Amino acid sequence: MAGPIAPTANAAARWRPVAARITGGLLGERQRVNGEAAVPSGPKRLESAGNLDNLRIAAGAPGDRRGPVFMDSDVYKWLEAAAWEYTRHGSPALLESQRQVTSVVAAAQHDDGYLNSMVERRYADLPWSHEHYCAGHLMQAAVAQARGTGDRALLDVAVRCADHLVATFGTDRRHDVDGHPVVEMGLVELFRETGTRAYLELAKYFVDARGHGLMEGYGQEPTYFSDRVPVREQTTVEGHAVRAVYLAAGAADVALETGDTGLLDALATQFDHMMATKTYVTGGLGARWDREAFGDEFELPADRAYAETCAAVGGIGWAWRMLLATGDVRYADAAERMLFNGFLAGVSLSGTEYFYVNPLHLRPGAHPDENRSPAHGRRGWFSCACCPPNVMRTLASLGSYLATADPDGVQIHLYAPSTIEAGEIGLEVETAYPWKGRVRVRVVRTPDREWTLALRVPGWTGAGGYRRERRRWEPGETFDLDLPMPVRLTTADDRVDAVRGCVAVERGPLVYAVEGTDTLHLIDAGAAEFRPDLLGGVTTVALTGEDRGPAAPGVTGPYRSTTQTAAIPYFAWANRGVQPMRVWLPRARI
Amino acid sequence: MAGPIAPTANAAARWRPVAARITGGLLGERQRVNGEAAVPSGPKRLESAGNLDNLRIAAGAPGDRRGPVFMDSDVYKWLEAAAWEYTRHGSPALLESQRQVTSVVAAAQHDDGYLNSMVERRYADLPWSHEHYCAGHLMQAAVAQARGTGDRALLDVAVRCADHLVATFGTDRRHDVDGHPVVEMGLVELFRETGTRAYLELAKYFVDARGHGLMEGYGQEPTYFSDRVPVREQTTVEGHAVRAVYLAAGAADVALETGDTGLLDALATQFDHMMATKTYVTGGLGARWDREAFGDEFELPADRAYAETCAAVGGIGWAWRMLLATGDVRYADAAERMLFNGFLAGVSLSGTEYFYVNPLHLRPGAHPDENRSPAHGRRGWFSCACCPPNVMRTLASLGSYLATADPDGVQIHLYAPSTIEAGEIGLEVETAYPWKGRVRVRVVRTPDREWTLALRVPGWTGAGGYRRERRRWEPGETFDLDLPMPVRLTTADDRVDAVRGCVAVERGPLVYAVEGTDTLHLIDAGAAEFRPDLLGGVTTVALTGEDRGPAAPGVTGPYRSTTQTAAIPYFAWANRGVQPMRVWLPRARI
Repeated sequence: MAGPIAPTANAAARWRPVAARITGGLLGERQRVNGEAAVPSGPKRLESAGNLDNLRIAAGAPGDRRGPVFMDSDVYKWLEAAAWEYTRHGSPALLESQRQVTSVVAAAQHDDGYLNSMVERRYADLPWSHEHYCAGHLMQAAVAQARGTGDRALLDVAVRCADHLVATFGTDRRHDVDGHPVVEMGLVELFRETGTRAYLELAKYFVDARGHGLMEGYGQEPTYFSDRVPVREQTTVEGHAVRAVYLAAGAADVALETGDTGLLDALATQFDHMMATKTYVTGGLGARWDREAFGDEFELPADRAYAETCAAVGGIGWAWRMLLATGDVRYADAAERMLFNGFLAGVSLSGTEYFYVNPLHLRPGAHPDENRSPAHGRRGWFSCACCPPNVMRTLASLGSYLATADPDGVQIHLYAPSTIEAGEIGLEVETAYPWKGRVRVRVVRTPDREWTLALRVPGWTGAGGYRRERRRWEPGETFDLDLPMPVRLTTADDRVDAVRGCVAVERGPLVYAVEGTDTLHLIDAGAAEFRPDLLGGVTTVALTGEDRGPAAPGVTGPYRSTTQTAAIPYFAWANRGVQPMRVWLPRARI
Repeated sequence: MAGPIAPTANAAARWRPVAARITGGLLGERQRVNGEAAVPSGPKRLESAGNLDNLRIAAGAPGDRRGPVFMDSDVYKWLEAAAWEYTRHGSPALLESQRQVTSVVAAAQHDDGYLNSMVERRYADLPWSHEHYCAGHLMQAAVAQARGTGDRALLDVAVRCADHLVATFGTDRRHDVDGHPVVEMGLVELFRETGTRAYLELAKYFVDARGHGLMEGYGQEPTYFSDRVPVREQTTVEGHAVRAVYLAAGAADVALETGDTGLLDALATQFDHMMATKTYVTGGLGARWDREAFGDEFELPADRAYAETCAAVGGIGWAWRMLLATGDVRYADAAERMLFNGFLAGVSLSGTEYFYVNPLHLRPGAHPDENRSPAHGRRGWFSCACCPPNVMRTLASLGSYLATADPDGVQIHLYAPSTIEAGEIGLEVETAYPWKGRVRVRVVRTPDREWTLALRVPGWTGAGGYRRERRRWEPGETFDLDLPMPVRLTTADDRVDAVRGCVAVERGPLVYAVEGTDTLHLIDAGAAEFRPDLLGGVTTVALTGEDRGPAAPGVTGPYRSTTQTAAIPYFAWANRGVQPMRVWLPRARI
């Protein structure tokens, strides 16, 4: 069964994803609670927030529509999550639930294929209306349903919607583009599933239409909409972070399927610049609450980091497509950083409470004036609910991001207890990653010829690349990779003013955080210790620091005392109530 | 003639402002260009932006209204500026221009006193409609016109408007309050001018009405509107910075006129907390672009400082009222810091180009996605034009913030070449302040008895307070104050993460900035030198630093070289085109 992002046989893909299943460990546990608690609760959320009623109203039922203009997209993201989750556990109840929601969607579609429950006048305000955005998520959900469950009801809806878009927009039709990208990815995936080349061509049109002034005069600078310069001329990421990375991921899909190396090179330049100047150590993307923007090079404040959960989803998707196209380990390194830190922090250990915004520092005593502030704690849903179902669909499909294959063998990029099926080759991975660096690969099935097993050696080891072992493998044979996992104290680029004089604690792929104090100045880091009782089981890092609390009443000068504490993985913060938190720790001696 | 903020005889004021006139120097030059270039251009701006047409339309003329809902306030702020400017140079043309604009305003007033050109349905959306806000500026302008020109046409309009408000809002009438404070200050000033006690009582009502849930459900957290807690229970400043300081200044006016020491104490606590935790070294107020908010304690990013010019105006006004009430030099110190740095940076040396936002750091190569970003350079006007006429009225009335009197004598707080008229006492001040620390006060007129001359010794000398000289003064006698002005390297509170490892260069009341480079790491500061040719004449500070530019292509590691540069006063930045700028300089050795 194909997962998301399944390049066609003709695609210019260096590597192709293979089916894998996560069987345990940290990621397996995150998938388990997502599948048991979060995904099944989706229809109730969509009922109570009004998303399904909106679609019923669009189909003729009485009532008043509720919520922001992109409400339909939450439905589609949940449908996608349900489809991928069904591939993990083929629950009849989930299948039935998905079919019921699908029928609500199908009933709202117009005869000509147009489908949107919120917009009064079609395409009258495309920079803001999210009509293509919703259509793109519909297509992704439909492809997931077809691949994951075999049902084709939603695919029929998506095809009719895509045909309508093809008939309406394009080079020799209406010149226009949605303010929020995602339809590019959706169209390419629909092309992959159906073979209809017009969808790929429309995706290419939407990629190339940006940066030519279509979105001037719509209340934001064109930068906001990723519309300041054409995608092929862009050298950085800028403006609204989610929009920017969704567009880049869609453009990477177009480059994969068209073999457009010029476009791919431009995207590589943008990705490199993003990682070098506009990415948090957590992989978080987006430095500004204001306009949810990337911000300037090296801006990256820890406290006011926006680092939206959806931007991490988009960043992982973009990195993965670049990896498939190029086989460059840097993209796998980036995806891992985003996944284990900026993304996983967006969902509670229970799997059902979310952060929209993922700062690297929460100050004590804040009086938050934003309702999506992490100072309010994690939430089950948001009035703008893009993040929760985005987390659900990503977790449910996580197995698809573990490994790839090429004619010479199999490449494993992300380590988790898992089974990997790549045609004639079957593998089992045993590991306690990310807590331990030992990875054991067992060959379960193998063809009777030489092939190469390539195992990623992450960049954080200091010598990133792929460890390649080419041999005639025997069934039952194992191969071990040992990744050293010392505690690392990381200093930022000197140009990141926000964290000058600070270090971040890292170990393996994980970034660490100190919770419960804001005044610790780091003296040194000590031993790592796995604590099965803590936060579902995490490895902590012992820290020695100087507590520089404010002076007590009547005391002159700041209070200082040497103190011991344990840093926890950043992704696990705010699971014991909201308390002060820091990723970047001031050094006690600078 | 009374200037702005003229406490009544019954007010609980420790000190009362006296009439003074700035005759030259830095502040005199800023007043000159404001009076010669900016203020006379106001009516043209108000015509082209549509403010005057809006009022004509409200009076019955045909046309479509333009601009944001608070457009009327720009007219009133300009009328106030024109009135104070008329006291400096009684230009018949300016008087005539002011009368014409006044007649446009008067014609738009309803029979019952209501006056607003933009609002369709009265008080239907008071948290956002700015109806009281516009009324407050009308009252301030009317008082200025009466005091500054003797005309009473606008005062009649303001009185009818205030009577309408008194008849509509209050304890036993409609319970409601404007989302944007300023009417509190306007009502108290109108009370001072007219003696109508109902205006003071309504101001007190508006102060006390906040913090009781009147603004819940209006699209922002109550914090945004300064409505989270009652003013008397508030211990900090929070939410929208301009709203917060305008409210505090209005509450201080109420406390002055009612002798309400409990209210005054609460305001003192808030002011102290603001200065200790939420004020930039420039005196700038407001750490966040997002919601134009103060932000959390110690947040204060240099690059993303909002520090709106209007917040500096409000901050100075609040500090001045607290000084009058308490006689505490800290308030004069705070007002001076705000005035010479955060406020003066908001207007070009030409007097006609403004900044809305006043950051302490501008990065190179930004692609700004906000139209009010300083990266675009100073602007002559804004679509939201609150700042330019606010600067005009403040500069035109600056003489009113120099000195005060009490029964024992005269206090001089702000040093500029000036003449001071305090009843029987007449003084002349000669000084090159802020470039030099020598202040010579010449007694021009004196009663034939002992009195005390009190001269502020600013807190930046390390020993702030008032130098008091009590004697029987002779006409022609002089008294010299010598304030040492070494270059100071200032370190921020350790809790301000944004500028850890950095220092700010200060000298006298001025904060310095380095322009044209973003990569200087400070080694040491050298001599101060007055440069008459530079930026209209400024004292520069020589700096030795290490330039840590990014690696050149093909060069490993960052480029470093020892370099010399000259820091300029922060207020003068961006007068030679927009270029990178830094107030906080990383130290080369930390």
